[in-house]
Amino acid sequence: MATKVEQTTNEVLHFIGNFGASEKPKPIDNKRKLLRRQSTVRDLRWNVKISGFAQKTHNPIRAIVDGLTIVPNPEKKMIALSIGDPTTFGNLLPANEILDAMKKVIDDKNFNGYAPSVGFIEAREAVAEYSAHQGVIKEISAKDVILCSGCSCALDLCIAAIANEGQNILIPKPGFSIYRTLAEGFGIECRSYNLIPEQGWEIDLDHLEELIDENTAAIIVTNPSNPCGSVFSKQHILDILEIAERHYVPIIADEIYEHFVFPGNEYFSMASLSKNVPILSCGGTTKRFLVPGWRLGWIIVHDRHGAFSEVRQGLLNLSARILGPNSLVQGALPAILKNTPQKFYDELVETLQNHANIAYSMLKEIPGLTPIMPQGAMYMMVLLDMKNFPEFHDELDFVQSLVAEQSVFCLPGKCFDIDDFIRIVLTVPKEMIIEACERIQEFCENHYRPPKIDEEIDDLATNFIKITDF
Amino acid sequence: MATKVEQTTNEVLHFIGNFGASEKPKPIDNKRKLLRRQSTVRDLRWNVKISGFAQKTHNPIRAIVDGLTIVPNPEKKMIALSIGDPTTFGNLLPANEILDAMKKVIDDKNFNGYAPSVGFIEAREAVAEYSAHQGVIKEISAKDVILCSGCSCALDLCIAAIANEGQNILIPKPGFSIYRTLAEGFGIECRSYNLIPEQGWEIDLDHLEELIDENTAAIIVTNPSNPCGSVFSKQHILDILEIAERHYVPIIADEIYEHFVFPGNEYFSMASLSKNVPILSCGGTTKRFLVPGWRLGWIIVHDRHGAFSEVRQGLLNLSARILGPNSLVQGALPAILKNTPQKFYDELVETLQNHANIAYSMLKEIPGLTPIMPQGAMYMMVLLDMKNFPEFHDELDFVQSLVAEQSVFCLPGKCFDIDDFIRIVLTVPKEMIIEACERIQEFCENHYRPPKIDEEIDDLATNFIKITDF
Ligand SMILES: Cc1ncc(COP(=O)(O)O)c(C=O)c1O
Ligand SMILES: Cc1ncc(COP(=O)(O)O)c(C=O)c1O
Repeated sequence: MATKVEQTTNEVLHFIGNFGASEKPKPIDNKRKLLRRQSTVRDLRWNVKISGFAQKTHNPIRAIVDGLTIVPNPEKKMIALSIGDPTTFGNLLPANEILDAMKKVIDDKNFNGYAPSVGFIEAREAVAEYSAHQGVIKEISAKDVILCSGCSCALDLCIAAIANEGQNILIPKPGFSIYRTLAEGFGIECRSYNLIPEQGWEIDLDHLEELIDENTAAIIVTNPSNPCGSVFSKQHILDILEIAERHYVPIIADEIYEHFVFPGNEYFSMASLSKNVPILSCGGTTKRFLVPGWRLGWIIVHDRHGAFSEVRQGLLNLSARILGPNSLVQGALPAILKNTPQKFYDELVETLQNHANIAYSMLKEIPGLTPIMPQGAMYMMVLLDMKNFPEFHDELDFVQSLVAEQSVFCLPGKCFDIDDFIRIVLTVPKEMIIEACERIQEFCENHYRPPKIDEEIDDLATNFIKITDF
Repeated sequence: MATKVEQTTNEVLHFIGNFGASEKPKPIDNKRKLLRRQSTVRDLRWNVKISGFAQKTHNPIRAIVDGLTIVPNPEKKMIALSIGDPTTFGNLLPANEILDAMKKVIDDKNFNGYAPSVGFIEAREAVAEYSAHQGVIKEISAKDVILCSGCSCALDLCIAAIANEGQNILIPKPGFSIYRTLAEGFGIECRSYNLIPEQGWEIDLDHLEELIDENTAAIIVTNPSNPCGSVFSKQHILDILEIAERHYVPIIADEIYEHFVFPGNEYFSMASLSKNVPILSCGGTTKRFLVPGWRLGWIIVHDRHGAFSEVRQGLLNLSARILGPNSLVQGALPAILKNTPQKFYDELVETLQNHANIAYSMLKEIPGLTPIMPQGAMYMMVLLDMKNFPEFHDELDFVQSLVAEQSVFCLPGKCFDIDDFIRIVLTVPKEMIIEACERIQEFCENHYRPPKIDEEIDDLATNFIKITDF
């Protein structure tokens, strides 16, 4: 029987191959010739268009910086205070524990394969444990954690899972441009709520509340802040949460700088302060561990009373697009999060606070500049008294001339959606900060035109309007 | 003067802080109370919905496998012939040169920072050089290369850059499910063109051509193929290109298995064979270098006569969403691509061909099974003569019972959009393949019911209709 069976099955394909003949279909070649026609419905030329999604996806910083003329003074070495990458100058290095963890994983050869699309369970457990401080209201488990390729990717998934075309998300102004980059491709509107510089960049809560309407899908809160370096107080976070709760708007908390706060300030995660507001917290190893290129980010889903059950499913669905961050970094993650010594974090924060103090004390003495002291992260915003720099039309002009004369480059406020400010990065080596501040001083002294006493009051009034009218 | 100036600027913030008082605005607290209202436009409950994008994004394999009852026979050790990850069983390891390159990059500490969002120039140059064989018609330069987090991400960018909601892309049937996962979220329709098993899984060109209409944004061609293991001949690729050219439809070539072909077959990249058809070739280190978890993929933009100038810009725009793959892998990429010895590739392919030969010769003797010999990649498709397995309603049933009785798990064809097939993975250790085939034999012999002679002709005819009616 076996022989018969074999024969039968083995003949299946053979038979199929000949089956057509008995039915006398047109020979394949003829049929192909018949079809070898020009299309009647398509353009008869190459006309390959960019999709709307790709067209609407853009990086505002790129666009602004590309529009600048950045030609340094050949007699002075360039100092870039623009780069939000702490590793650029080699003065800030990841802890050896982190590098060793990676090498061990490579030697073990157990982490070259695919991870589940939301990440290895051990890595997700490690994030849950590392983030236990967020879970005071409801304990975090690995099931609440989704690993992503950097915090950018975490934000991408959150925005894409929660908002539809025609809906809006509320974002800080000044703020990090990635939210626009991620949302606008989808036709999600970004509405900017003001931060108030003279209140340590707290949110203008009235303004925030005014922006909420029936199409508001989420509020994005960046704390600590890029570009401001601000760290919100517990009370301020409670005020934000109160608004979110009253209007039933979920929060996406961009907490990539969590714990990155200068001594004397305290950091509170949003999720740790709310019983009722569902929150997606986005974080990662990028900043605090000094490895931005490693692209390890995460989402922690803080559901409240099941409000996020659909969104959680949405995030799971979306994770299938990428298949998770690099598996070696995932493999090393438990060791990275557990073994990095407290000393490493402390020294890093101390260095940055030191740099902030130096820059602040130097810049505040410079005519026309008003630095705003940060409480954390890696940045400082500096207000330009533009009225008294009459040679410059705006801060873009200021920035270009500063490069041309002094070879110091800072990002203009427009990169963060605000006029009349420049952002300074505090991760560059101390000597560079000092040198840069000295050059900025020389530059400002050359270009600053003090107001006449009469004009002064007017100027300040105008300035006030500008500042509150971001 | 300096003193005056200082004073003025230092007073700016102070002044602003007091400015409100003279204008007598409502004290901030009162104002907040006024706003502390319920919304009139929003739902007064938590009603957070999943976005359409996230809802439509799904992984068909997940859905099908989750729907199966997979309970192995406790008396037999499970053998998973289902996992498309060559690293799972530890029998296939990346070359030491690859691991050493990674460790060197970690020690050098120069690759912890952000890469440009399209990738480091050195890494892109290395890909251009490695892919020179694709550039016989027009030389490839680093500018044509965009690095991505795995080939999935490369495909994601390509599909998202080229197609709009309401447009369609043509995908192979059977084919890898990621195309649907990526496209359907955007509302891009996936139209499946048939592959013909008895012609070594070549494309049914007439069917392909029939599917093209004015909304066709691209044809996706997978070569070598997952799940078929087929490798297209030069002539077949020319035939596909002829259709694309005549209808002015660009091609997305999924070439993640490039060079992964058994001796005696030759691999041609699509781009190497067309002067006029613009092609996006997607590849990466995932398969050939045995490091799927590392998530290093790439797009090579093969523009022709400027047809891709918009799409190229679109891809650049979209790369800002992710900020590139892991920087360590990027740093190691030039060494990985240049130093991996030919011997490593040859041995890997030889092992897989050996496994294919073993599985093929064993399975073809089993009643009710018709394996189709692959020419490359890591998979083999096996046709089930379902009519003669009357106990099983479909191949899902077959697969479940095979696990329950023999603890052997293969993915059902439905995971790849085709009925009556199972896919077998060839990367498992040789002994496991042999053991699995023996168990499959026992299973089939227990369940196969040979057709009566009269029925036989009918059956085969039915089978033919099924096979051509995918
Ligand atoms: C506020 C903020 N969110 C997110 C990111 C992106 O982080 P990642 O590099 O992990 O994608 C940055 C990076 O600068 C940032 O400043
Ligand atoms: C045909 C095909 N394309 C793309 C991919 C995805 O590759 P990557 O893991 O690099 O994202 C796979 C993975 O199995 C595949 O089989």
